[in-house]
Amino acid sequence: GLNSPFARIADVSIDTVDRVIHNRGQVSKKTMKKILDVMDKTNYKPNFVARVLASKKKPRLVCLIPFHTPENMYWEAPLEGIIKAEKEIADYGVTVSYSLFDQYLPGSFEKKTRDVLSDHPDGVLLAPFFSKQASDFVKKLDILKIPYVFIDSKLKEANNLSFFGQNSFRSGMLAAKLMKFSCSPKGTIVIVNIGTEYEDIHHTREREEGFKTYFINNTPDIPLHVLNISSEDINNMDSLLEIPDTDISGIFATSSAHIIAKYLNNKGKGQITLIGYDLTNDNITFLEKGIIDFLICQKPREQAFRGIYALFHHIVFEKQIRKNNLMPLDILTRENFNDYLEFELNN
Amino acid sequence: GLNSPFARIADVSIDTVDRVIHNRGQVSKKTMKKILDVMDKTNYKPNFVARVLASKKKPRLVCLIPFHTPENMYWEAPLEGIIKAEKEIADYGVTVSYSLFDQYLPGSFEKKTRDVLSDHPDGVLLAPFFSKQASDFVKKLDILKIPYVFIDSKLKEANNLSFFGQNSFRSGMLAAKLMKFSCSPKGTIVIVNIGTEYEDIHHTREREEGFKTYFINNTPDIPLHVLNISSEDINNMDSLLEIPDTDISGIFATSSAHIIAKYLNNKGKGQITLIGYDLTNDNITFLEKGIIDFLICQKPREQAFRGIYALFHHIVFEKQIRKNNLMPLDILTRENFNDYLEFELNN
Repeated sequence: GLNSPFARIADVSIDTVDRVIHNRGQVSKKTMKKILDVMDKTNYKPNFVARVLASKKKPRLVCLIPFHTPENMYWEAPLEGIIKAEKEIADYGVTVSYSLFDQYLPGSFEKKTRDVLSDHPDGVLLAPFFSKQASDFVKKLDILKIPYVFIDSKLKEANNLSFFGQNSFRSGMLAAKLMKFSCSPKGTIVIVNIGTEYEDIHHTREREEGFKTYFINNTPDIPLHVLNISSEDINNMDSLLEIPDTDISGIFATSSAHIIAKYLNNKGKGQITLIGYDLTNDNITFLEKGIIDFLICQKPREQAFRGIYALFHHIVFEKQIRKNNLMPLDILTRENFNDYLEFELNN
Repeated sequence: GLNSPFARIADVSIDTVDRVIHNRGQVSKKTMKKILDVMDKTNYKPNFVARVLASKKKPRLVCLIPFHTPENMYWEAPLEGIIKAEKEIADYGVTVSYSLFDQYLPGSFEKKTRDVLSDHPDGVLLAPFFSKQASDFVKKLDILKIPYVFIDSKLKEANNLSFFGQNSFRSGMLAAKLMKFSCSPKGTIVIVNIGTEYEDIHHTREREEGFKTYFINNTPDIPLHVLNISSEDINNMDSLLEIPDTDISGIFATSSAHIIAKYLNNKGKGQITLIGYDLTNDNITFLEKGIIDFLICQKPREQAFRGIYALFHHIVFEKQIRKNNLMPLDILTRENFNDYLEFELNN
């Protein structure tokens, strides 16, 4: 039968090999290792499935990411990436569950971390939105020896298995390069931070820093103006834009560019260059209209997809995982976003 | 043993199942189909390997792409993609061989097509460089019922299984958008075609058309000047650039931007915006120096990698293959090319 070569090489009974593969009855760890080793050496493909089935472990992964809303669709894409990965690894007995929080409420994040801990998962994928609360959480995961993967942003000095995301500082530098190229050399550049009441959410601060650094290094004479707009004030932007429109040559939105775009669209955009982040449906509308000129993107589907695979490979196959996995800084315009989206959705 | 459940369901002897899986002795087509069906239904993972081994078919694929040289490294990347795919599918008994031609000599391409035909492969991956010669070739493949996949560019009205590449016209539009954004509104824009003696090689013509179309639609008043430079004349560019440098605000190189960059670098670049294609080492040197401002890229490794997989999936598993697979139009600058390369090489 199929098992006999393995039985012969591993020097165990065919019945034992059968027990390992079919997960029937007890086999000593030593014997199982022997059999799996032989399977590995002979490059016998079913060994992976067999190993998982034999181990009787049905790993459970939990994802702790924000929920998406009609107003903020960004987090739909990572969820799609997770679901895609989940389907692919279901055959290995891995289950994935979701714990979705409100990205504007640290208390919501905190509550969900407690739920996750009481659930004793085998691995956690998370967007560490609120750094204080996230730090407390991952310290507990460390103690419980539960591996975790960051997507979107990361915490400094955490023992995360892996990180999938963008270098936010460099993405700010890139936005500045595009801005410098696209703008009249006169006029003020405005950096707009929307809905960042909580100093530590997102990586918008790093984006801003990268942007400023580029201008200071390259064209220190161009005036930069920073505007912080709270989530509540977005419908009342007129009073906030204190500088006359005619003096503004470009706007860099560290998040939610569509809100600025809507405002500019209503007022008549003129020559103002608008650069933002992420290929959400809202942003696409204004990219198509030519109100948003450039969007910098970060493959949110792929971040989450790869994050789940990192946990899966680590837990099930004990594979080595690269700790830092930077996504490319993709530049999207009206001309190239369709091909980009098609490629992302079909792969 | 492992085979018994299949034997029971398929109503054949264990010995027969064993013969199928281990490719020993004869099994009728009907019986084999029965066994494979049961394997499929029971979601028995080794079925794929078993099916290939049982079919006794060891598919042979041939790749017909240009060889790369120290002066033109572009085609190294597709070769890397092919080798990566080759390693992954070697377990299925698939072998891949290479037939590399000189991208500047139609005769070299033609000779290699004759070699490929006399080799009777099961599938062909090709860059259809010279349209007349490539058309003749694929007509013969059609007659022989040998499936073929295009990468890099495609022929109109061919029966290719699949195509992996960029929309060249739209990439020209994108280059024009970047150019329009980056240039002073005065000054001439020069389009440079290098080494395109053979009207049909590359997709440089479509790039040029896309570029022109964008300018005609958006800013018809900006003067465009087209310069065709033969491969032999590249060391004698001064006499070719008839317009005074001071009047040039931007140069669009439909290929080999590094040659223009070297020329500009020696002369002192000034404010001329330079946009080209492909993240080759030569181009990267000048991107880092700030002589090349933007490069539009097309994932050459991935094109070839996916091309091989398309043939493999089609031949071995009879999977449905998408005919048109457009790569995104990636925009690379000094600020973001490192993250892009790192991502490409690690995935």
